[in-house]
Amino acid sequence: MKTTALIMAGGRGERFWPRSRKNMPKQFLSLTDDSRTMIQLTVDRILPLVDIKDIYIATNGAYKELVKEQLPGIPDENILCEPVGRNTAPCIGLAAMHILKKDEDALMMVLPSDSLIKDGDRYRELISGGFEIASGHDSLVTMGIRPNYPETGYGYIKYTKDRVLSGYRVERFVEKPSLERAKEYLEAGDYLWNAGMFIWKASVIRKQFENFLPDMIKGLEAIGDAIGTKDEERVLNEIFPTLESVSIDYGIMEKADNIYTIPGDFGWDDVGSWTAVARIRDMDKDGNVIDGNVIAAGVNDCIIQAQDKLVAAVGLKGIVVVDTPDAMLICDKSATADIKKVIELLKSDGREEYL
Amino acid sequence: MKTTALIMAGGRGERFWPRSRKNMPKQFLSLTDDSRTMIQLTVDRILPLVDIKDIYIATNGAYKELVKEQLPGIPDENILCEPVGRNTAPCIGLAAMHILKKDEDALMMVLPSDSLIKDGDRYRELISGGFEIASGHDSLVTMGIRPNYPETGYGYIKYTKDRVLSGYRVERFVEKPSLERAKEYLEAGDYLWNAGMFIWKASVIRKQFENFLPDMIKGLEAIGDAIGTKDEERVLNEIFPTLESVSIDYGIMEKADNIYTIPGDFGWDDVGSWTAVARIRDMDKDGNVIDGNVIAAGVNDCIIQAQDKLVAAVGLKGIVVVDTPDAMLICDKSATADIKKVIELLKSDGREEYL
Repeated sequence: MKTTALIMAGGRGERFWPRSRKNMPKQFLSLTDDSRTMIQLTVDRILPLVDIKDIYIATNGAYKELVKEQLPGIPDENILCEPVGRNTAPCIGLAAMHILKKDEDALMMVLPSDSLIKDGDRYRELISGGFEIASGHDSLVTMGIRPNYPETGYGYIKYTKDRVLSGYRVERFVEKPSLERAKEYLEAGDYLWNAGMFIWKASVIRKQFENFLPDMIKGLEAIGDAIGTKDEERVLNEIFPTLESVSIDYGIMEKADNIYTIPGDFGWDDVGSWTAVARIRDMDKDGNVIDGNVIAAGVNDCIIQAQDKLVAAVGLKGIVVVDTPDAMLICDKSATADIKKVIELLKSDGREEYL
Repeated sequence: MKTTALIMAGGRGERFWPRSRKNMPKQFLSLTDDSRTMIQLTVDRILPLVDIKDIYIATNGAYKELVKEQLPGIPDENILCEPVGRNTAPCIGLAAMHILKKDEDALMMVLPSDSLIKDGDRYRELISGGFEIASGHDSLVTMGIRPNYPETGYGYIKYTKDRVLSGYRVERFVEKPSLERAKEYLEAGDYLWNAGMFIWKASVIRKQFENFLPDMIKGLEAIGDAIGTKDEERVLNEIFPTLESVSIDYGIMEKADNIYTIPGDFGWDDVGSWTAVARIRDMDKDGNVIDGNVIAAGVNDCIIQAQDKLVAAVGLKGIVVVDTPDAMLICDKSATADIKKVIELLKSDGREEYL
């Protein structure tokens, strides 16, 4: 049974401003000690399991050239440009149409383009197990991540003892919890983080769209019918924007049954904000991650990404400094969520050049 | 009796790096809400008391052009270039030789080039009183500053109740104290900060050099004899470097008697480090002083001097940020004394371009 993959790469990565920009978002940047970009790492990681000709990249048109540049092996027609962002359900449905057009029996995995996996071998081992469950049982499979602290920024997956191969039957999906609730989940031991990684047969997820998103699947089928015809782009541009903007979690996963989750112990990190850099990079003895032209005196627990300009850091603790040719961020680690306020101010002031 | 002034402007201002540079030190920068530089403010402040033709600037040769540019009214021959820095006693002695050459009876005031005075009228009133004491009693007069906190970075002046006009007889000069001692001085009420501002007859300070620095005055007289001759520069360059490097406080003031001090209540600030900027500039409602292209979100008690490059400051508290075209400082307010470590590292690494 053919294995295929959809990598979702339409995000803006605003939390990595000012390095991540409208024209060069996070997934196209190198943020680790590896010189490859996040999306290159994502593709290379699955290549032993999926032929590059069967990897699809969903993104928006503005990033098509970046995808072609960074991933020259991906066929042009596999770069799926969403006319507008419509959350994950329409994106996944669109990819399923393309995959089914070529092979009604194909297995499909769905991945974010910007998470980090430390143990690639273990990752591929568990993904292979997921393919087995999805192919043998027509199940929806989701890779869960064992929580090690009460994160409130992720959804959770509650699983049961009912097991098929490496997968546990999912009892329910839970939206982002309060801290108190997250602590309960951590303690309970049968909750995993929902990391947005899915495995299923393309035909099975189509069936779930029919069950739970019947209007959406009609639009998707119309788009699917036009694939490969001269009307393909016109139909996509006409219909896709009319699809409901809804996540696959809310639209399908929370409603479907026959879902299995595999607890993923492969060193996952969502690289969700600048503070993640301290987890995914080598630190010096003072807990700093420092790049570029920097002099540091009495500096602890800082992330400093300088370029050519000399950055002299003195007496700093827990500060993120990111320099770029036209903009510099200086942010307390506890306040990285407020970087979006900067983006909002730039937008409302019409300072497009910095976005 | 003619009044003259010596403004000492040879300092490097390293604590104001990276704006203050080897080729453009602090006294030639504007650091206040006024666009005039520190040395321009210093000269303008005394012009009602001293003819510009009687103002002398002691500096080093590298800054001669800066002085001419910023103070075009100062006669060329009044710009005294020290061949090497030899602390304040040789500097003051050199100026006294120049002043005495023109007028044996001249009064002389000595000022730093980079302190700030908020109340210029009161300042000039007290300086005038100082000229009166110095001319009428052949005294050495020093302007003291009433301490309002136990500063350990200044010397102190202990004065008695014995009074002449606005001046109090000085009992002794005290070097930089411990914090405990500084607290005692603050409590005692009869100690003032030594701000390095002096008033005396040029002939009287020459006499004190003869008393307490007899070797130095011999060298200074030889230099004085050559002033106006073709040998002036050669003699200066030969002899000045041989003079003992000693401060006027240690060399003379701590040993002489007949010293009076005037408590100066004119809003003095030595503008000694970046944290002074918060005292001498207007702050916003969050206690920040912000210049240039800055977006601030959740920022308190910060000093941010940006230029064209956008600086986005998020969640910062008590941080100094100073951008320049080639170097940027990011420093906790509590650590500004460690800026010298950066300078030392730059020196030891031979990175002259940043000094």
